[in-house]
Amino acid sequence: MGIVLGPNRYGKAENRVVRIYRDTARHEIRDLNVSTSLRGDFDDAHMTGDQSHVLPTDTQKNTAFAYAKEHGVDSPEDYAIALATRLLHATPSADGARVEVEEYPWDRIQVDGQGHDHAFVRRDSAVRTVAVDVTAGATVVTSGLKDLVVLKSTGSEFRGFLRDDYTTLPEADDRVLATSLTATWRYVAGDHDWNAAHDDIRGLLLGTFATTYSRALQETLYAMGTAVLRARPEVAEISFSAPNKHHHLVDLSPFGIDNDGEVFIAADRPYGLIEATVTREAQ
Amino acid sequence: MGIVLGPNRYGKAENRVVRIYRDTARHEIRDLNVSTSLRGDFDDAHMTGDQSHVLPTDTQKNTAFAYAKEHGVDSPEDYAIALATRLLHATPSADGARVEVEEYPWDRIQVDGQGHDHAFVRRDSAVRTVAVDVTAGATVVTSGLKDLVVLKSTGSEFRGFLRDDYTTLPEADDRVLATSLTATWRYVAGDHDWNAAHDDIRGLLLGTFATTYSRALQETLYAMGTAVLRARPEVAEISFSAPNKHHHLVDLSPFGIDNDGEVFIAADRPYGLIEATVTREAQ
Amino acid sequence: MGIVLGPNRYGKAENRVVRIYRDTARHEIRDLNVSTSLRGDFDDAHMTGDQSHVLPTDTQKNTAFAYAKEHGVDSPEDYAIALATRLLHATPSADGARVEVEEYPWDRIQVDGQGHDHAFVRRDSAVRTVAVDVTAGATVVTSGLKDLVVLKSTGSEFRGFLRDDYTTLPEADDRVLATSLTATWRYVAGDHDWNAAHDDIRGLLLGTFATTYSRALQETLYAMGTAVLRARPEVAEISFSAPNKHHHLVDLSPFGIDNDGEVFIAADRPYGLIEATVTREAQ
Amino acid sequence: MGIVLGPNRYGKAENRVVRIYRDTARHEIRDLNVSTSLRGDFDDAHMTGDQSHVLPTDTQKNTAFAYAKEHGVDSPEDYAIALATRLLHATPSADGARVEVEEYPWDRIQVDGQGHDHAFVRRDSAVRTVAVDVTAGATVVTSGLKDLVVLKSTGSEFRGFLRDDYTTLPEADDRVLATSLTATWRYVAGDHDWNAAHDDIRGLLLGTFATTYSRALQETLYAMGTAVLRARPEVAEISFSAPNKHHHLVDLSPFGIDNDGEVFIAADRPYGLIEATVTREAQ
Repeated sequence: MGIVLGPNRYGKAENRVVRIYRDTARHEIRDLNVSTSLRGDFDDAHMTGDQSHVLPTDTQKNTAFAYAKEHGVDSPEDYAIALATRLLHATPSADGARVEVEEYPWDRIQVDGQGHDHAFVRRDSAVRTVAVDVTAGATVVTSGLKDLVVLKSTGSEFRGFLRDDYTTLPEADDRVLATSLTATWRYVAGDHDWNAAHDDIRGLLLGTFATTYSRALQETLYAMGTAVLRARPEVAEISFSAPNKHHHLVDLSPFGIDNDGEVFIAADRPYGLIEATVTREAQ
Repeated sequence: MGIVLGPNRYGKAENRVVRIYRDTARHEIRDLNVSTSLRGDFDDAHMTGDQSHVLPTDTQKNTAFAYAKEHGVDSPEDYAIALATRLLHATPSADGARVEVEEYPWDRIQVDGQGHDHAFVRRDSAVRTVAVDVTAGATVVTSGLKDLVVLKSTGSEFRGFLRDDYTTLPEADDRVLATSLTATWRYVAGDHDWNAAHDDIRGLLLGTFATTYSRALQETLYAMGTAVLRARPEVAEISFSAPNKHHHLVDLSPFGIDNDGEVFIAADRPYGLIEATVTREAQ
Repeated sequence: MGIVLGPNRYGKAENRVVRIYRDTARHEIRDLNVSTSLRGDFDDAHMTGDQSHVLPTDTQKNTAFAYAKEHGVDSPEDYAIALATRLLHATPSADGARVEVEEYPWDRIQVDGQGHDHAFVRRDSAVRTVAVDVTAGATVVTSGLKDLVVLKSTGSEFRGFLRDDYTTLPEADDRVLATSLTATWRYVAGDHDWNAAHDDIRGLLLGTFATTYSRALQETLYAMGTAVLRARPEVAEISFSAPNKHHHLVDLSPFGIDNDGEVFIAADRPYGLIEATVTREAQ
Repeated sequence: MGIVLGPNRYGKAENRVVRIYRDTARHEIRDLNVSTSLRGDFDDAHMTGDQSHVLPTDTQKNTAFAYAKEHGVDSPEDYAIALATRLLHATPSADGARVEVEEYPWDRIQVDGQGHDHAFVRRDSAVRTVAVDVTAGATVVTSGLKDLVVLKSTGSEFRGFLRDDYTTLPEADDRVLATSLTATWRYVAGDHDWNAAHDDIRGLLLGTFATTYSRALQETLYAMGTAVLRARPEVAEISFSAPNKHHHLVDLSPFGIDNDGEVFIAADRPYGLIEATVTREAQ
């Protein structure tokens, strides 16, 4: 049996592209972390060291910065589609290009009750994400958000679970439920209003988390996914990765103190990790 | 020359205390990271291994959690004062106790335009901090915030600086100024409205950053400190640690593209680091 | 089109299991970070909130700790196979179990030229990894290492690459090549001497990196993969993820100083990211 | 009471300086993270925005890189002294300069039992540190190491401690003792063999940790400090910061399994934090 090259790709990761729009006195900012990659027939680069079909990762970086101006960043989706398409076309040996973007949100600093024209404060709760994959035949856009940290101080239980010889967990009638949500949703083909869709989906996720009684984090995620698919026909499916960030009730009884759901220790590790996809039925 | 024990202290670091107030249907949450330490005459513990004067760090942890209920957390300052005072009194060999608290802010999730009763989303921009130091004679409260990430897209220059043989930096007429601000302010002795003071000082820092033309980050920090000292008589002095998070203008000229302050690369390292204290004149 | 549950799994991540062997005065230590997950028919848990088929993640955690004693940790592979098999059997609704382990290596502290019996110092260079996936029909073992940081100060070039309008990179005849290597190799079915194989593969990767002239990181990875597949018949294929950790030559000419490959700035971001699999030809 | 500028300093932090010595085929590598700062009379920069006395942080960065070649890096101490002295002299308004260096250690990759000439693998256990402070009258050198992770699987107890109403900790006759040690030692004035001293002190710290029975982490630290001061007359004093990285014995009794010091959970937070200085008696 011979030895051969299997799947491979290469690119430039984590280009920190900051685009300021300053056409008027009221500036806009788009703050991006951009990663690119190309895949295709790059056997020579691996097997003989011949780089003649390899568009350098440095060039990919240059293109990422140049496109922030040439194409602009109306949305991270729009920018990533343009960039991935360019990289694929610039590289004859490539049959696929992938661009992943994280966007860090900023708010205007409030001065006398008004948002300032050119001073911003970073809002770190939840990074907006997009991954665009372009081939000759298709452009697939998967948007998302990550590290959206949410918590419910009641309205959550966990009971009636399977038990075996290693089960010691007591049932919980009323617990804290917290997670740092990562969600990604794949759009159906076509152009969409990326910014409006993102904002609406974020709101749906938060609202459903808040208002759904939870019998398990799995049930909550499924409800969140269902809410998004019902409201947004342009979303083909949505996936979640949700660490169950345990908040353990602290036993204060040795000190003669009741603790009826008031004092918790927030644990780091281990954590539950729940992953699920909610999708549309095949026809 | 003999060998002796010098300064020493011990405690429990990073107790993740979460306090839920659930007396009504509208819950409140205080999410704290609490570190305690004791100092004093602990020579025996170090030199002979005799622990009889040592209040265990485990006990300090227990007290931190118990006090979240017994004393409560109206403000991190108020809680830290009570906890440090307790730890000092419980430990006859100690002559000082220090409690440091980070508080992570949460917002209510908005549902139909209203903040939800018991569902929260974490707001990560800037951690609120306090360090309380208690001795027999004094309680010193130093509050602050850290990692407040702010950026101005114009209104900042850096010119007319000292040059030597290693200077290559061009003068900048219009640059991006960004920092991840850490500020700590020491209060004059006494009880204060800790929560109101914190909110007001945060607003003053942001507002001054936004509205002050900057000839250097040093000048901006001094202006911010002056604004706080003028407005808040209960603040004795304020200190800043501010990394100058460089945003380098990207040279797009090889591609025939102008870049008039529109596309930047946000650099990780190295970064400028500016530290300054603004204080009141001794009388 | 209805809405349905797609792929899903759940488990307990990052159980920090430390196993001390103390049967003789010469202790052994295995320091593990263990993540488990189960997948299968868990529709009820998601759709109706019925948890009766769900083995809690807390039970998975308990089993991970209990198995460190009951089964023991002769190798992380051996332990993970046993744990995954147990979790699958304990959960009738599951059709697959996956256990991922990171192992942190420790050295004995040297005292008078000899390794101490029960005192250890952690050696952080490269974490040993394993992922075991168990279904009714198959047990797949994929071992690896991650964050093996290596550097060559010469013997590396990058030339003759594809150019487009955004290419500015000069050719490099002699550059620093550095990466933080992550490698994973899948074993053919069966039982193997996991510890011996790991040590040998690590040595092959390092030795090949050191002694292969590099015309690109791609070529180096391919050579490393080929060396492993040639030497170890029990390895079916090997995959690499290798950030090209750029070391930029610093321009010291403004100060009248030559810099012939002597002073570099180690950059954080962006970095090249090269990913490749080397495999055996299908028959 | 007027408002005035208090203590202040500024500099460039985290310059990642990599110096390759390639005068012979057998290369040497020094891998540094260099932070510089200047302090003195910089009132104008803060109060009026006048930068004419400010040596830019960019120039400090340039000097750090240039000095890696011009002066060289025989030891981080030697390099830091030269760099701090240069920065102080280049800046008439400064009355003090401080240079802090972290050095990351590399080993040669072993090929056929021999260390390779120009291929290296990073050894991450413990970073070597130095802080040099230069003023007109004095040069103070404080060397150290950080994140030296050590563990004893026996030979450690914690008993006979003070108890109060919040004490629940049982006494421990035989526990795991682990820490991630940070140590800094100040040298007496003068030139020393920095590299030899560092290696010897590291060995003394490890050896003493290994061979000293521990009745508390405090006692262990004091023994380590004493060992260094006894053996190295050029060390004036030594300070430790040592998190007590708790390893909690896991209760396996619900599963009918004994756990006699064999299975532990390594906890992240909270952790004990022990800080102590061992010094020489004033005469």
